[in-house]
Amino acid sequence: MKTHILLIDCRDEAGIVYKVTGVLYKHECNIISNDEFVDKTTNHFFMRTEFSGDINKDEMLAGLRAALSSASISLVERKKKNIVIMATKEHHCVGDLILRHHYGELDADIRAVISNHAVLKDLAENFSIPFRFISHEGLERGEHEKKIIEEISNHSPDYIILAKYMRILSGDFVRHFPNRIINIHHSFLPAFIGANPYQQAHDRGVKVIGATAHFVTENLDEGPIIAQDVIPVNHRLEVKDMVQAGKDVEKKTLSGALKLALEDRIFVINNRTVIFN
Amino acid sequence: MKTHILLIDCRDEAGIVYKVTGVLYKHECNIISNDEFVDKTTNHFFMRTEFSGDINKDEMLAGLRAALSSASISLVERKKKNIVIMATKEHHCVGDLILRHHYGELDADIRAVISNHAVLKDLAENFSIPFRFISHEGLERGEHEKKIIEEISNHSPDYIILAKYMRILSGDFVRHFPNRIINIHHSFLPAFIGANPYQQAHDRGVKVIGATAHFVTENLDEGPIIAQDVIPVNHRLEVKDMVQAGKDVEKKTLSGALKLALEDRIFVINNRTVIFN
Amino acid sequence: MKTHILLIDCRDEAGIVYKVTGVLYKHECNIISNDEFVDKTTNHFFMRTEFSGDINKDEMLAGLRAALSSASISLVERKKKNIVIMATKEHHCVGDLILRHHYGELDADIRAVISNHAVLKDLAENFSIPFRFISHEGLERGEHEKKIIEEISNHSPDYIILAKYMRILSGDFVRHFPNRIINIHHSFLPAFIGANPYQQAHDRGVKVIGATAHFVTENLDEGPIIAQDVIPVNHRLEVKDMVQAGKDVEKKTLSGALKLALEDRIFVINNRTVIFN
Amino acid sequence: MKTHILLIDCRDEAGIVYKVTGVLYKHECNIISNDEFVDKTTNHFFMRTEFSGDINKDEMLAGLRAALSSASISLVERKKKNIVIMATKEHHCVGDLILRHHYGELDADIRAVISNHAVLKDLAENFSIPFRFISHEGLERGEHEKKIIEEISNHSPDYIILAKYMRILSGDFVRHFPNRIINIHHSFLPAFIGANPYQQAHDRGVKVIGATAHFVTENLDEGPIIAQDVIPVNHRLEVKDMVQAGKDVEKKTLSGALKLALEDRIFVINNRTVIFN
Repeated sequence: MKTHILLIDCRDEAGIVYKVTGVLYKHECNIISNDEFVDKTTNHFFMRTEFSGDINKDEMLAGLRAALSSASISLVERKKKNIVIMATKEHHCVGDLILRHHYGELDADIRAVISNHAVLKDLAENFSIPFRFISHEGLERGEHEKKIIEEISNHSPDYIILAKYMRILSGDFVRHFPNRIINIHHSFLPAFIGANPYQQAHDRGVKVIGATAHFVTENLDEGPIIAQDVIPVNHRLEVKDMVQAGKDVEKKTLSGALKLALEDRIFVINNRTVIFN
Repeated sequence: MKTHILLIDCRDEAGIVYKVTGVLYKHECNIISNDEFVDKTTNHFFMRTEFSGDINKDEMLAGLRAALSSASISLVERKKKNIVIMATKEHHCVGDLILRHHYGELDADIRAVISNHAVLKDLAENFSIPFRFISHEGLERGEHEKKIIEEISNHSPDYIILAKYMRILSGDFVRHFPNRIINIHHSFLPAFIGANPYQQAHDRGVKVIGATAHFVTENLDEGPIIAQDVIPVNHRLEVKDMVQAGKDVEKKTLSGALKLALEDRIFVINNRTVIFN
Repeated sequence: MKTHILLIDCRDEAGIVYKVTGVLYKHECNIISNDEFVDKTTNHFFMRTEFSGDINKDEMLAGLRAALSSASISLVERKKKNIVIMATKEHHCVGDLILRHHYGELDADIRAVISNHAVLKDLAENFSIPFRFISHEGLERGEHEKKIIEEISNHSPDYIILAKYMRILSGDFVRHFPNRIINIHHSFLPAFIGANPYQQAHDRGVKVIGATAHFVTENLDEGPIIAQDVIPVNHRLEVKDMVQAGKDVEKKTLSGALKLALEDRIFVINNRTVIFN
Repeated sequence: MKTHILLIDCRDEAGIVYKVTGVLYKHECNIISNDEFVDKTTNHFFMRTEFSGDINKDEMLAGLRAALSSASISLVERKKKNIVIMATKEHHCVGDLILRHHYGELDADIRAVISNHAVLKDLAENFSIPFRFISHEGLERGEHEKKIIEEISNHSPDYIILAKYMRILSGDFVRHFPNRIINIHHSFLPAFIGANPYQQAHDRGVKVIGATAHFVTENLDEGPIIAQDVIPVNHRLEVKDMVQAGKDVEKKTLSGALKLALEDRIFVINNRTVIFN
């Protein structure tokens, strides 16, 4: 029997859970887990239901739509998703994902690693993952992004993972993949605006270094946050050591965020996430 | 309008959520939050629903019982609970709870602090909390516990908090208050069995010290775990410093566990907890 | 026998430790702990030595000054320091410090709690700590600060703890107490600039909330960081719950930072700290 | 100019630092960092000094030995160390170390991966690291260990890393490499003794899972602790998910512990570590 995941996102009103579970009951599903959340500030309702059963998907969707006329409804089979990784030169996040993938710990197929540099080619190919070197040299940003979008399109990925892709993406690019691009970047407590944040963090003697994984929106690093974590540091760390500490926490945070995405546990409302885990 | 919390705990089967939410829908409740969990290892279903509405409680309970004949069902109004604190001489957990209580941050009335020593009397009475000194001197354990049970009975507490109560409780005592006694104790990674665990932990150079808050069962420190946390330490800490670090993490862990209990977020199954937070 | 703490801060050069320990050896001290650090970016040397012994302090200082002609040298007896707490209305940090003080866990005498509101009077006086209500109503900032400085001067505090003192201090005020004012404030990952940061943090769905304890400089919240910590949060927390979580982490972080200061473990270089712990 | 690390470990007495730094001063060294610690419970002195300079190593050692007649003194050049990894089937720790090594982030040469199974062969060889499959099938433990010791001897490793090597090592084996074998294993709060600790941890509803990296002594998992860390879990994790969480924290903890060893930052006293970081 297959497992499906039902995601519902709508304005809150009385009886939603009753109506939804009524449809599921009629289809004789076996509910594995069920999460709901009502966001009071927006009066919005979120529901994630994982169930097994031999359903007629079209009929179930029709039943759900009849019951909840204005809801956003998604019904997907639980199976491996496809992802494409974009990277530049840094190996730490890419390598971690590739190893998890290689040993069956990532519920996804890495369809390709796309990079604007060639340095990670061996890493990908050692584990039989296609590597696409798409240099930005001599190209306008739009031209470069067009090539990347073409390559991505070949793989129909569910998610695009920016595993330290160091070029700024245009609004056009981002709009192609709404809430499907996940980025990781270092974060500080407090933030240090401007160039060389690790130097700034060092110069103020920060005691923790963090990382934030988030969906990419047109405002780049300001999209909805999926996961955050920190690592302690002290005055003995030079800037380069803080950079290394930052890599360690980025790697951990990105793989955690990706797991949530692959299990369809994330809703986005405005610039926030609702995460059932 | 009042807020109620409905807790359902039963063998899993198809349609439970549908049936329960059907009853709620009929009573025109407004669901604030809804959590369910199916434990696969025991095939057990847990549901916590917080809702507002002007309900007839008896009718709703009758409806729920008709729908789910063999479930354990609890329907309580969300309001301040009553707690009794038991302590010995250490102030850190008692003081933290008393301050939170005094400033309205604890969703409970501390009805009394009961201690087998007098040292915490001023702390309680400074904040107008009744302090009951029930010495164990010259008493058999059974006699001592009988006096404590009498005092507790005067307050009909929802929970009894062992905020560093350093005497072993008998099975008889524990059976009076099933899943209603919360204890806090230091924990180590790994555990150090026997006398003077802080000395043992020091002598092995542990790098973290932890605390565990749990329900008390007849197996004492082995009841279902509610919350755990750790604090980093190093070789510079002498045993007394590790004890102080342990106090800091105990205080934080106990108040976190109590919050979960006061909001009716904890189910117990066998020797485990299912916590919706 | 008394314990002393020697702090040396100077430009790095060969032989400093040899020269310093030579003086200590001549005075027949028993070194309890010794920490040094050379900051490569500034070529600066820091040393903290804790020792016991029956020394002639003036002679030792003369010996040290002869050996290290251009160093900043501090030699203080290890004993309880005096602190003054400044607060406004929030109790969490003040209460935590007062309880630690009351039970002998704080290596300091709280000489007074000064507040521009009266609400914390009972808390202080319940534990026999002088409370000074110095209202800012009807006063220019300079006049208000003058009154506070007068009150502080009565107590000759080693440190002034801003335990949620919610008024901005002038550069004049800060210059009275260089590297002696410790402040605590919430911190986010990333920072949210402007009004109502908890609302902003909520609206972006942050997953951790942090706190930063730091020395106050004329740039207010941008002084050298002493301690930082974080607490995990999720979408279920409303803004008010995030505020409460922020209080819990502020309380823990401030008491940790104060402990470092009271033990003379902190050096400041430029806008950074070097902390031996 | 070369960098050296001097490690001194002796009974505490007056003047040690003075005598040691006197020798360094005479040799015109430039001290990079200097850490000392006196353990009061054993009256033991530890010192780690990192310095640069064009020294005559034999002369310096002779000078130090003359000054401190009964100390344990080690003077090593700071350079890449050699390590041998022992593993069984699990990839998470081995893979993490191999990637760090491959990208120059590990201050060591991995001379070989030795395993009693063949499954990690590709992982090692993809990154040009020799893989030695030494099956235990049909061999007495002593015979198997003899083969491993022979292989290890070919590489003269500074440290042997048990990256989830799942066979129990004999006292004989351990005595070959005192304080040079580093092991990683899961740890719980509290510990669960006996078979299947993850099942036991699950069945008690633990809220954190930890890992401990330690030197291997004849008491196996009870040697001096180098590093520990934890990761939060909840009731939604099945046993297999807890195992995965345990892998993630093991990986992070082992690489942290190894870094400390490679930088000569660890002393062992009795069953404890003193770590300068």
